[in-house]
Amino acid sequence: MSEIWKQYQGENKDRFLEELKGLLRIPSISSSSEHKADMEKTAEYVKNKLVEAGVGRVEVFNTKGHPVVYGEKIVDPSKPTVLVYGHYDVQPVDPIELWDTDPFEPTLKEDGNLYGRGTADDKGQFFMHVKAFETLSKTDSLPLNVKFILEGEEEIGSPNLKPFLLEHKDLLKADVVLISDTSMQSLENPSIDAGVRGLSYLELEVTGPNRDLHSGVYGGAVANPINVLTKLLAGMHDDDNHITIPGFYDDVDILGDAERAEINKADYDEAAYKKDLGIAEVQGEKGFTTLERTGIRPTMDINGIWGGFTGEGAKTVLPSKAFAKISFRLVPHQSNEKITEMVTDYIQKAAPKSVTVKVTPDHGGDPYVTPIDSVEYRAAQKAIETTFGKTPIPLRGGGSIPITSLFESVLGISTVLMGFGLDSDNLHSPNEKYGLKNFYKGIETIPYFFQYYAELKK
Amino acid sequence: MSEIWKQYQGENKDRFLEELKGLLRIPSISSSSEHKADMEKTAEYVKNKLVEAGVGRVEVFNTKGHPVVYGEKIVDPSKPTVLVYGHYDVQPVDPIELWDTDPFEPTLKEDGNLYGRGTADDKGQFFMHVKAFETLSKTDSLPLNVKFILEGEEEIGSPNLKPFLLEHKDLLKADVVLISDTSMQSLENPSIDAGVRGLSYLELEVTGPNRDLHSGVYGGAVANPINVLTKLLAGMHDDDNHITIPGFYDDVDILGDAERAEINKADYDEAAYKKDLGIAEVQGEKGFTTLERTGIRPTMDINGIWGGFTGEGAKTVLPSKAFAKISFRLVPHQSNEKITEMVTDYIQKAAPKSVTVKVTPDHGGDPYVTPIDSVEYRAAQKAIETTFGKTPIPLRGGGSIPITSLFESVLGISTVLMGFGLDSDNLHSPNEKYGLKNFYKGIETIPYFFQYYAELKK
Repeated sequence: MSEIWKQYQGENKDRFLEELKGLLRIPSISSSSEHKADMEKTAEYVKNKLVEAGVGRVEVFNTKGHPVVYGEKIVDPSKPTVLVYGHYDVQPVDPIELWDTDPFEPTLKEDGNLYGRGTADDKGQFFMHVKAFETLSKTDSLPLNVKFILEGEEEIGSPNLKPFLLEHKDLLKADVVLISDTSMQSLENPSIDAGVRGLSYLELEVTGPNRDLHSGVYGGAVANPINVLTKLLAGMHDDDNHITIPGFYDDVDILGDAERAEINKADYDEAAYKKDLGIAEVQGEKGFTTLERTGIRPTMDINGIWGGFTGEGAKTVLPSKAFAKISFRLVPHQSNEKITEMVTDYIQKAAPKSVTVKVTPDHGGDPYVTPIDSVEYRAAQKAIETTFGKTPIPLRGGGSIPITSLFESVLGISTVLMGFGLDSDNLHSPNEKYGLKNFYKGIETIPYFFQYYAELKK
Repeated sequence: MSEIWKQYQGENKDRFLEELKGLLRIPSISSSSEHKADMEKTAEYVKNKLVEAGVGRVEVFNTKGHPVVYGEKIVDPSKPTVLVYGHYDVQPVDPIELWDTDPFEPTLKEDGNLYGRGTADDKGQFFMHVKAFETLSKTDSLPLNVKFILEGEEEIGSPNLKPFLLEHKDLLKADVVLISDTSMQSLENPSIDAGVRGLSYLELEVTGPNRDLHSGVYGGAVANPINVLTKLLAGMHDDDNHITIPGFYDDVDILGDAERAEINKADYDEAAYKKDLGIAEVQGEKGFTTLERTGIRPTMDINGIWGGFTGEGAKTVLPSKAFAKISFRLVPHQSNEKITEMVTDYIQKAAPKSVTVKVTPDHGGDPYVTPIDSVEYRAAQKAIETTFGKTPIPLRGGGSIPITSLFESVLGISTVLMGFGLDSDNLHSPNEKYGLKNFYKGIETIPYFFQYYAELKK
């Protein structure tokens, strides 16, 4: 079968890329209300591409937020069904001045990478599935049923996905969820994310006096909300970089020595890692390696902080308010709801009476693990072996795919994460990129997943 | 003499106010390079007003920054000379959305206050001296020589004042410096600032990785510069709100019980103070009262902080950089240069090797005290007694007037701080205001200072 796939893909290669570029040119930033029309335009674009690829039934569902694009091709109800998930929304582009090219004008550079917002996360990755499906459909070789669910709110925490899943349980019935929204080690040493961390994202607002004050007149006698905020945040880590919030580690899955040894077998060259990032030292929780810190241990990062005077020059202000956005990466078997409550409670208790603190949970997701003896993991492994010529190793990924636990809890379906990106793709950062090789390798690999899944599932 | 002064001021009252409004309408924000032309326009306006008031010699001196306006009226070289200092530059207006009126369209409200940037700090206050001088000049009753030095860089730390003083030592010869750039308790209970705190202002920049990273991929293994910044800043205070920087308190003047008791005699109603600010509790260094905390104790305030994603929604970024502006208020006999060095050293040592930290000193000034048995203090006291009908009490003010120590060290001249503002004037904040009563009361009082100073100095 592989020969006709190869031929079809070879003949349509350039068109695949042009279509992806068209998708990347629409600035579908889900967090910004001014891009509402772009979201609808993107959904429409995606819908048309599914139709052109041969997906029989395609529908754009409106939600309270941005639309969900749904598609399905049922070849035989007795065959297994794979539900492909992806998201057509992207992150904001700030700080825009750090981009070397226009984030919404996809630019192929000599390094073989396509630069632009969404190239890797996740337009470039989910679009591989559309083209892989097209390959099977146009060569009459679809071995099972395929459904697509492509949402526009992943980057803002998928607030309307759960209601959508609950409302369309029957429509979404499937045997497994397949997602490409993660990365692998490298094209030379492929890997599969056998687990992803969960997430609790919160915003803090500390309010002191009812107006900005002159720090010379009131400083030292009136609590400065920025001073208080730094105390609250700094207090969440001890000197060993353990998180100090009471109960935080209670549900953390403690791995045995053998499992830890397995994780530490992954590619990791500390000198190269530090050089790539331009840092003199790595830093993290005492007693764990870098691979463990990003894979099996929970973390707390301040993603944004602001307050007071941030302009040119000096202003001796004691501001009325200070703000921070913080997020916790969670590991099995932590619950994002429980952690969010715990953190909120901790902050409320730790804040002095001289200020008021408002904690607003943003979004979250539970951690997720794909057992490596499952049919879906083995099908993904075999597909990658076929096209990469090497057995991928299972990794515990650092990022969070909160919707995996949603598919599990609402629809009762397991997920396999077959990502083709790289950690160096600058996700959520300026100059996001996706290797053209990765793009084509993904399109080449995915049909094999369908084939092996259909075989193994029998 | 007072009758003809009163008559002159009564007849010209409205014109005084209109002239002040004209001064306030020019947006002389010294920290912003785009206002360079406005700075020159303001200097020109001030020059013209000095000339019209009867100051014989008036000159605008260019500096490396904004111009200095100088004026002098020598009535008799054998008589004492008072050097009046003021500044015609103002603070930025951010956050502009919190202003109820246009900051550069002075607005008199029914509460009797004139609202606008610079009304109290310091245009409205130094302009009282121009009008007080005019009163004496036009009524032929100037009892001594008067010099004016009005600069345009006070709000950015007077970087070019010291070179100017050094270059014009002879020109600036005087017996005392008189400044109205502080506040009194209230018009009912007048006070004089017998001491002001010094200042060290610094900017910190913490750099982690060479680019913004995805916190899910790198979080927990790579130092997050915002996390590090909050640790560094929070570590500067212990749980009792003492500053932890080694040696910080070494030079602090420790007052005896009697002196502390004297300070605590000042007007202070904690319930009213808290109500005005909308806070549930005051907060400050353990073992000291609010009046002591703002008067005789050094402090550390974070005046601004920023880093990472601060827009709408959520972004799970581990940023490359984080920033803060911090300032220390200093008391006798701390030295701002020594403190700046100490803080820089502390930060460099406390920062982990996983990041680099850049500390940029912004501006500073040493603390200053006016002895209450000095001629200048007694002249100011008597002037206020005459027009307010009440003996002012000496206070240790919280703000910093760094130029006082400059006049002392470069020219060997003492300063008396006769401020007519109120702590509630929203200096450096939105809706800055100055009471119209305070403005006229100042114009009424200043001629008496000249009269009593001439008498007492004999």
